[in-house]
Amino acid sequence: MSHMSTLKLTAETESLINNRAVGYSLEAPFYASQEIFDLDVEAIFAKHWLFSTTEAEIAEPGDFVTVDIGPHSVIILRDDDEEVRAFRNVCRHRGSRLLDSPCGSVGNLVCPYHQWTYRTDGSLIHAESQPPSFERDRFGLKPVHVRTVGGLVFICLGEEPPEDFDEVAGNIEPYLTPYDLRHAKVAHQVDLVEEGNWKLVMENNRECHHCDSAHPELITAYFPLFGYTADDVTPRLRPVFERYQAAAEDLGAACAASQFPRDTWYEPDTRITGFRVSHLPLDGEGSSFGPDGKPVCAKLMGSITQARFGDLSMHMQPNSWFHLLSDHAIVFRVLPVSPDKSIVRTTWLVHSDAVEGVDYDVDSLTSVWRTTNDQDRVLVAGTQCGVANPGYEPGPYSLVEDDVEAFANWYIGRLHKYVTS
Amino acid sequence: MSHMSTLKLTAETESLINNRAVGYSLEAPFYASQEIFDLDVEAIFAKHWLFSTTEAEIAEPGDFVTVDIGPHSVIILRDDDEEVRAFRNVCRHRGSRLLDSPCGSVGNLVCPYHQWTYRTDGSLIHAESQPPSFERDRFGLKPVHVRTVGGLVFICLGEEPPEDFDEVAGNIEPYLTPYDLRHAKVAHQVDLVEEGNWKLVMENNRECHHCDSAHPELITAYFPLFGYTADDVTPRLRPVFERYQAAAEDLGAACAASQFPRDTWYEPDTRITGFRVSHLPLDGEGSSFGPDGKPVCAKLMGSITQARFGDLSMHMQPNSWFHLLSDHAIVFRVLPVSPDKSIVRTTWLVHSDAVEGVDYDVDSLTSVWRTTNDQDRVLVAGTQCGVANPGYEPGPYSLVEDDVEAFANWYIGRLHKYVTS
Amino acid sequence: MSHMSTLKLTAETESLINNRAVGYSLEAPFYASQEIFDLDVEAIFAKHWLFSTTEAEIAEPGDFVTVDIGPHSVIILRDDDEEVRAFRNVCRHRGSRLLDSPCGSVGNLVCPYHQWTYRTDGSLIHAESQPPSFERDRFGLKPVHVRTVGGLVFICLGEEPPEDFDEVAGNIEPYLTPYDLRHAKVAHQVDLVEEGNWKLVMENNRECHHCDSAHPELITAYFPLFGYTADDVTPRLRPVFERYQAAAEDLGAACAASQFPRDTWYEPDTRITGFRVSHLPLDGEGSSFGPDGKPVCAKLMGSITQARFGDLSMHMQPNSWFHLLSDHAIVFRVLPVSPDKSIVRTTWLVHSDAVEGVDYDVDSLTSVWRTTNDQDRVLVAGTQCGVANPGYEPGPYSLVEDDVEAFANWYIGRLHKYVTS
Repeated sequence: MSHMSTLKLTAETESLINNRAVGYSLEAPFYASQEIFDLDVEAIFAKHWLFSTTEAEIAEPGDFVTVDIGPHSVIILRDDDEEVRAFRNVCRHRGSRLLDSPCGSVGNLVCPYHQWTYRTDGSLIHAESQPPSFERDRFGLKPVHVRTVGGLVFICLGEEPPEDFDEVAGNIEPYLTPYDLRHAKVAHQVDLVEEGNWKLVMENNRECHHCDSAHPELITAYFPLFGYTADDVTPRLRPVFERYQAAAEDLGAACAASQFPRDTWYEPDTRITGFRVSHLPLDGEGSSFGPDGKPVCAKLMGSITQARFGDLSMHMQPNSWFHLLSDHAIVFRVLPVSPDKSIVRTTWLVHSDAVEGVDYDVDSLTSVWRTTNDQDRVLVAGTQCGVANPGYEPGPYSLVEDDVEAFANWYIGRLHKYVTS
Repeated sequence: MSHMSTLKLTAETESLINNRAVGYSLEAPFYASQEIFDLDVEAIFAKHWLFSTTEAEIAEPGDFVTVDIGPHSVIILRDDDEEVRAFRNVCRHRGSRLLDSPCGSVGNLVCPYHQWTYRTDGSLIHAESQPPSFERDRFGLKPVHVRTVGGLVFICLGEEPPEDFDEVAGNIEPYLTPYDLRHAKVAHQVDLVEEGNWKLVMENNRECHHCDSAHPELITAYFPLFGYTADDVTPRLRPVFERYQAAAEDLGAACAASQFPRDTWYEPDTRITGFRVSHLPLDGEGSSFGPDGKPVCAKLMGSITQARFGDLSMHMQPNSWFHLLSDHAIVFRVLPVSPDKSIVRTTWLVHSDAVEGVDYDVDSLTSVWRTTNDQDRVLVAGTQCGVANPGYEPGPYSLVEDDVEAFANWYIGRLHKYVTS
Repeated sequence: MSHMSTLKLTAETESLINNRAVGYSLEAPFYASQEIFDLDVEAIFAKHWLFSTTEAEIAEPGDFVTVDIGPHSVIILRDDDEEVRAFRNVCRHRGSRLLDSPCGSVGNLVCPYHQWTYRTDGSLIHAESQPPSFERDRFGLKPVHVRTVGGLVFICLGEEPPEDFDEVAGNIEPYLTPYDLRHAKVAHQVDLVEEGNWKLVMENNRECHHCDSAHPELITAYFPLFGYTADDVTPRLRPVFERYQAAAEDLGAACAASQFPRDTWYEPDTRITGFRVSHLPLDGEGSSFGPDGKPVCAKLMGSITQARFGDLSMHMQPNSWFHLLSDHAIVFRVLPVSPDKSIVRTTWLVHSDAVEGVDYDVDSLTSVWRTTNDQDRVLVAGTQCGVANPGYEPGPYSLVEDDVEAFANWYIGRLHKYVTS
């Protein structure tokens, strides 16, 4: 992965990258400085594979979504040949934004300014009043790398995308297959503006150390054993632990019966395209995020045949996480806006045959995570405030914040690679 | 025109100025970077003659308008001797803004803070509690260069204004004389905030390539021959072309009869004070911007005796354009606010004897250009979005964007002169 | 007072500090540049003693206020041993802001994120899931220097606070003692956002040259002799001057009878902790800011026994001033937000036994200074606008602006010391 950086980093920033204290939260400038934000956009968001949208959102030829990543804007659409394509959202004439809507459907792509017209494969087919010498072929839309994996759409703005993505895609696809997200439908989508650096949003997601006090609605779905090992189990916790063991065994059996993978795959910081997949049994009825672990949609996803199928939890660096349940899936995407602002998009997917008002109710379907996201929003904003205080200094991660540390390690490693290559 | 720049330009900016690709739109930083915005304010807006207001707005002694140009604020007023004068809008004591209103009328200029008092000629006549050694003469208001041409008021913030203005004034004044803007009255005025760099606003004005699709209301006034030459006329266009030829002949005759100049004067990029004047026949009834080319005011301007008198269209670099019709005039002024924000002021002038509700109706008078401005606002905002996208690269101008290119050439030429002198 | 500056100043800023013209207002960048604002926060606000709150606001153990000074946030609280303590408002774990409320009461300080828990003395008493090697003692809250003087609370963010504070405290405490602010109660508090640099707010406070025209409500309390000496007294002013002399004599007698200090102490720019105390007789009934100098609270402050006790006016550099009257006290605190924004907090204190609706009415108590503050807000905003105009150049102070000049001298002197040490 080569690059031509347009940024000249200060010695202070280089030193921060080179001398990061392992085991401690990041230094303040990583969350607050404009220089490092610009570096993040350039070195992380413009060079790595980013989860961007779901195939369910662009089901038919001509369907598109636009994605804004800092100053970058990208059109992702389904071409007439059913392939997913991505282009820079900018006209090759005088630079007008081509598509202004967050999503929609087009035949051709027509610039609103002077009607330069492009096919959905990006080729320019009309440009008025150009001289005879005009070479139309030179002015097609600029393509952006795009890949789909199990119904999830990833893009990479860099010229040479990380080469390990094929391998990662091969690793995660078998876990996603049972859910058939490719043919799911969007039941609901929410964009939440968070007053915090994108890394605080990610770090917040990478641990549940705060869940006990912050997320009473969420934790009812999980066994109250977060951070415990078998050795820690006290007599009081014994019944919970036994309930957990039984549920884990059932989940293993269900996966084995359908030949679905069951093991955790943990590479959050040991490769360019860091990821983690784990399949967690759920407490209570054990099906979904409804009250007492009850389902929230009557139709099961894809080829899944039993409601008690746990939570397939997936993390992708740098900007996404996913919860896949037997009856619905929730996908989360974080995009940077400014050093102290980010946008989190949450999308709820259900089986394409599920009927609103019959099989599911949007309020019940989305209740737990709308609430959880909003609780996290407050925590992230409070942390952004705090780390911008000159009195802040990095503090030590606890034993149950290993995924936060893995995220930070991955991030610092990628910056280091970028500034030294 | 000498200068003492307070800006230290980066090598990148100097390179952008020196290596601009002719025939292509400008590179992104010209529209988005704070450094180039500051350079624009210093090298363009603080050194060139700017259209600022009309004499009609400061008809009587003591009448003033204030004009904010980036961080600069200027008072333009009519002195007791009927001359138009201009001053920096800042008290010589502790720097308070002197006049806060956009317009009004004063006897003397009294600072709201400690009542330092200046005559309308700028001289300080009162400053309390100063020691006997205080030299009042040293603390008059700082003058700003000001010139009037045919009722239009131009200012120059620089110490040594461009010397070619006398010549330009001599060239354009005969075209303006028939309209007698000096004794017109303001029928309406609108300030429109545009989410775009001031050059995108100007470039948008300098072509009508976008008019067909964007301005259905405006184009009914003009012959649908924009960008065509006699050679292009197809059989289908033949009747239009003949209508145009007849109207052009009538306009020539009308000008000749009144000894008004008729020829186009085209110097948009070949001199410091770039300008263009052309007198266009109008379609339909051929009088004004009313439905089917009908008049919108019953009283004709100045010494004009026939309603069918076309559109005297004038461009002035860097920040203005004008449409003068037999029954009203519209003057446009663009001022920079920040790299991605500008303010466009549109002022409608009618004969001073025209009575609202009798001779004209404000809604009908202003309808076409209020609508057109708002359509342009959307296009400019979309282009600002696009050029800020790292995927943007300059594109080729079409054959009918020659005035856009002339504006860009003038602009780059002036920057180049500034940074190398 | 040593320091480790994180700022690299430009040559231009150093030159501005070194070459300031004495007797003239400050150059524009002192009011408008981000670089100098950052220097102000670092060299002035993070190194000097700042008036921050009153003891009345944290009367009981566990009571706290939070104070935001640019990016710094500080918790000031009363510990269980009744001492006032101050800490950085940031958790030592991952940097969350600890307390989000501007004031309140706590038992322990519990971080909202992962419940790290601190005693009111700052010591960490709980941090979950840390490894056995975790040294709790290393992660107490970071203390901030704090001092109380006559019921006023001062903090210093620097590691080595100015050493002259003991001496200054000794000087001013006897003047404050009669008012017993320590046991007063807060009757009202207002935060006013001003669109101006913090120094413009302070300079505005340091002179009453503008009072005649700007503050008609305020000046009725004072003798209309501002800026006059005995030599200036004209026959027309003779009766006023005699009234003033009588009131001054009465005030002297009242102070002498109670053994309270009476002389003015004037050291605004001759020491690190610049200050001024003066005790001014009031006009009319001579008691307070009520109509015709009437009292606004029926209970007198502290040990004061007569209502006609003048105005004890105190200035402290860099950010506060105080008016203490027989029946109430008003304390003013200015904090910087950005180059062109500041927050002024005004707090009205009355005797702790005074009962709202019986002894005083909040509207009457606060009327004059709410009005005065708002008038000053307009003047400060107008000056911020003006000094940002490139047409601004520093102007000469008048004879009655000596305290403004002293403030500017103090400020420039402190910057100079900081950048050269």
